[in-house]
Amino acid sequence: MSIIVLGTVALDSVKTPFGSRKELLGGSAAHFSMAARLFTPVNLIAIVGKDFPQKHISFLKGKGLNLSSLIIDEGKTFRWAGEYAGDLNTALTLNTELGVLSGFKPRISEGQSRIKNIFLANVDPEIQEHLLHKMRSPELVGLDSMNYWINNKRKELIRLLKHIDIYVANDQEARALSGENNIIKAAKALKGYGARMVLIKKGENGVLFYSDKFIFSLPAYPVEKVIDPTGAGDTFAGGFMGYLAKAQKVNPTTLKKALAYGTVAASFNIEDFGLNRTSRLKLQDLGKRLNKFKDCFLF
Amino acid sequence: MSIIVLGTVALDSVKTPFGSRKELLGGSAAHFSMAARLFTPVNLIAIVGKDFPQKHISFLKGKGLNLSSLIIDEGKTFRWAGEYAGDLNTALTLNTELGVLSGFKPRISEGQSRIKNIFLANVDPEIQEHLLHKMRSPELVGLDSMNYWINNKRKELIRLLKHIDIYVANDQEARALSGENNIIKAAKALKGYGARMVLIKKGENGVLFYSDKFIFSLPAYPVEKVIDPTGAGDTFAGGFMGYLAKAQKVNPTTLKKALAYGTVAASFNIEDFGLNRTSRLKLQDLGKRLNKFKDCFLF
Repeated sequence: MSIIVLGTVALDSVKTPFGSRKELLGGSAAHFSMAARLFTPVNLIAIVGKDFPQKHISFLKGKGLNLSSLIIDEGKTFRWAGEYAGDLNTALTLNTELGVLSGFKPRISEGQSRIKNIFLANVDPEIQEHLLHKMRSPELVGLDSMNYWINNKRKELIRLLKHIDIYVANDQEARALSGENNIIKAAKALKGYGARMVLIKKGENGVLFYSDKFIFSLPAYPVEKVIDPTGAGDTFAGGFMGYLAKAQKVNPTTLKKALAYGTVAASFNIEDFGLNRTSRLKLQDLGKRLNKFKDCFLF
Repeated sequence: MSIIVLGTVALDSVKTPFGSRKELLGGSAAHFSMAARLFTPVNLIAIVGKDFPQKHISFLKGKGLNLSSLIIDEGKTFRWAGEYAGDLNTALTLNTELGVLSGFKPRISEGQSRIKNIFLANVDPEIQEHLLHKMRSPELVGLDSMNYWINNKRKELIRLLKHIDIYVANDQEARALSGENNIIKAAKALKGYGARMVLIKKGENGVLFYSDKFIFSLPAYPVEKVIDPTGAGDTFAGGFMGYLAKAQKVNPTTLKKALAYGTVAASFNIEDFGLNRTSRLKLQDLGKRLNKFKDCFLF
């Protein structure tokens, strides 16, 4: 079954200990799509400005994404600039230019409104809510956010969580929103806001998945040479949600397998700048690495 | 096959958000033994002062430990006082009184010198080396250390690593000794010092095991109510080495199973103060939790 992803398509400038790149194609929806497309048709819902290079449109189309609801508006494309140092676990944001993102009102087609798998990647919670209201028969809704919205649109975000099946947060966000230090308590508190399940991404330390019925925990895939972690969380979400959309059922086994696919997808993402590695990925690459990943912990 | 553990037997005073306790029986060798004894006979090599309560001796004997080489010397028992706050991941040391530990020269019997499984828990590297020289046919030697020795006896520690099969370090120590931020690179660098295999403990984030041939990675067992993490790393090592001593072979399967046993043993340790929980553990408790643990990631 196909999936719809709402998020950003951006021009990212990053600096890491391995080099720097200017105006790379990036954004939460773009990173998500590179992994999700390996499992299921992806409908990308985002906005860019008139300055957005045509080559990027062609590139995204070439990856099989449905861009019929990608708005190209008067104004500038969303830009983010950041830097990573040391262990590359935390980005230092140097600059953010919202551009057309500030007036974004997602539009979708009649056909798209009937898609059952939905991922609301990181944008303003009011934009996420706006899209969710348009969906006619949501079955599995995932949501990601960030500290900025947790601090500045806390009420809107918490209101939205009541309609979410899987809230995807990183560990800092989970602690910030819940006020709990222990990560299991944090997950439990977030579930208390209404999300049916909570998925906490811990970067190089793997993921924790929490529902009332079960707790899953997976390590990260060991990567020695991390070049650029930008978009790793979105790539993870793309592999995770993409696999579930394809599996068409949510149970302990499919959830754990989805977590594992998300993990290996993210491990490819961080091995090169921007979408360089994930845009060349094939499902069999994921499968091969999934087997290596299993060898890390199966006994 | 039996195991020999060299380390500290201490009187610990701890304060955590859940309360405080004074002069609890603790120390690296004591915590290690509580887990290792579930798998194999344990010979405890340590020193205490004349002030060491007789009830603790009886308690340790009652747990089946061989105390024939526990030295009771003139002077005071090693004491440690520490405090945990927030997420309980890091101890703040408030006070350390070495007492008899400062003049510790381990003694072992002829029979003990032929034991093949050896764990050198955290004490001065020169004391660790002193014991290792007495061993006649070491087959599997594990070693733990701490930042204090990494900073103050770096040369002695690195010299010792050449004779070690499994170097057990926490992530901060691994980064400090190797100078590498990426944890896989850190493990590789530590292996470069001579240890055959490297085991990096990451607390609530599980463990990473590194050798030239394989990398294993396991998450932690999810524990919601962490009461006192003191000794969790030593308990982990006890479960890990104890299982390997019993299995009598080191291969990918036994290593991963040993990591899993260490993980669940540590998860019991942090659920109560000092040795309260681990001293009551039975092998079947570990087995039951091991199965729950597997459910967290097996698919």
